[in-house]
Amino acid sequence: MTKFDEATQAIKVDEGTYDVCLDPGYAIGGPLNGGYLMAVILRAAVDASPFEHPVSTTAQFLKAPVAGPAQVRIEPLKAGRTAAFARATLVQDGMAHIEGLITTATLNGAEPVFEEPADDMPGRDECVKLPDPKPESGMTLNAQMELLFDPPTIGWLKGEPTGRPESRAYFRMAEPQEPDPYVLALAVDALPPVVFSAGARGWAPTVELTWHLRALPAPGWLTLLGSGRLISDGWFDEEVEVRDSAGRLVAQSRQLARVGRG
Amino acid sequence: MTKFDEATQAIKVDEGTYDVCLDPGYAIGGPLNGGYLMAVILRAAVDASPFEHPVSTTAQFLKAPVAGPAQVRIEPLKAGRTAAFARATLVQDGMAHIEGLITTATLNGAEPVFEEPADDMPGRDECVKLPDPKPESGMTLNAQMELLFDPPTIGWLKGEPTGRPESRAYFRMAEPQEPDPYVLALAVDALPPVVFSAGARGWAPTVELTWHLRALPAPGWLTLLGSGRLISDGWFDEEVEVRDSAGRLVAQSRQLARVGRG
Repeated sequence: MTKFDEATQAIKVDEGTYDVCLDPGYAIGGPLNGGYLMAVILRAAVDASPFEHPVSTTAQFLKAPVAGPAQVRIEPLKAGRTAAFARATLVQDGMAHIEGLITTATLNGAEPVFEEPADDMPGRDECVKLPDPKPESGMTLNAQMELLFDPPTIGWLKGEPTGRPESRAYFRMAEPQEPDPYVLALAVDALPPVVFSAGARGWAPTVELTWHLRALPAPGWLTLLGSGRLISDGWFDEEVEVRDSAGRLVAQSRQLARVGRG
Repeated sequence: MTKFDEATQAIKVDEGTYDVCLDPGYAIGGPLNGGYLMAVILRAAVDASPFEHPVSTTAQFLKAPVAGPAQVRIEPLKAGRTAAFARATLVQDGMAHIEGLITTATLNGAEPVFEEPADDMPGRDECVKLPDPKPESGMTLNAQMELLFDPPTIGWLKGEPTGRPESRAYFRMAEPQEPDPYVLALAVDALPPVVFSAGARGWAPTVELTWHLRALPAPGWLTLLGSGRLISDGWFDEEVEVRDSAGRLVAQSRQLARVGRG
């Protein structure tokens, strides 16, 4: 069992109830990373499903949970021949913190009938890391993963944002851990908010995130291609497309989030 | 009250319960259109919310409801200063048919900080209608709306699919009815499945659809820009971006659906 498997473990206590222990190693400042929390919820949802793969996950972020014990409650809604549907709720101190709808199915790894080619990305040797966060920043998530950024998309760090919402990076776990659907849940929410590249700063809370697992990832590095279409009324969208080391589209996400007041 | 307003009416019977009457005029063959059903659910969700606009809607399509009486049950999850969260369930004959998570907020119509320009689209005078469906086909939805297609994207009708998942059309309601968030719920699921343009045929059931309301639409025609990134394992994604008559991005959707066996 890898460190990530352990940090996302969900232990069944009765039909539809799982005990989890939220790991302080996945924090972004105070709050825990939303992708990590989705991975925890998905452990329980897949355990409770007749199918193996979480093909669709929606999460509403009601309230930020803190590190420590919590529960995932699964309410099966329907299981058909192709897919099963369930409601999933992350509960802490008796209160719902994340509300989810999860669809599970079994992907069989067939060759695609149609696949849009990935957008261009420079090689890993031309990409750059973010500086290590200060220990007092509470950004413990950074130590869990390696991100190598397409340089212009972190130009905002030195006061040179590109002027458009975007963020692109290679991704892998810091500990030896091949990508799987749970790692992908983390990956779709692992980039700095795309609005940083459009000049915004500050905490940009996710309100809703939906992602789809489209294929099981090959071993190796993932590529995260993040972008946005509209920043307006204090809201922005962030799309992340994830490609595996073979270039296959393995996950697609969109989140609706608030622009920080940083 | 327009015909569409009437067809999507939700009458409060008690806290969290709304009576609705599903209109046979929104059928695509046997089943009712998913966008129409989302509009009905949103009437109830917005009525039950302290906020005016459904900024995020996720629907899992568990079972196809039939025309006639049904209920929408709303379970408020949290109301904050900026947004409120609710669970919404469409129930017919005592069974959940659609399960939803809805986030409401109030959009204030500010000028965008950043907006991606829309993809190119020929003028309406260069676009074409679909032939009227045969009465026995049960495609009653077609009469409710006018769609003018970018010609190559309905080449599949005469055996000339473009080879890629795409569909683009101008949209307005057939009866005088300016676009609003409920019309947008219909619009994001109003195009023929994008996979038809990649050579697939047959009933392509939506499994999950999430859409975001990004701005209130100006009066006039809408433009629906539909595309997909991957067709694999019997699954496909369909993205629809909706622009209003002023070119503003007003809605974004993605659905995960099954390829028909037509």
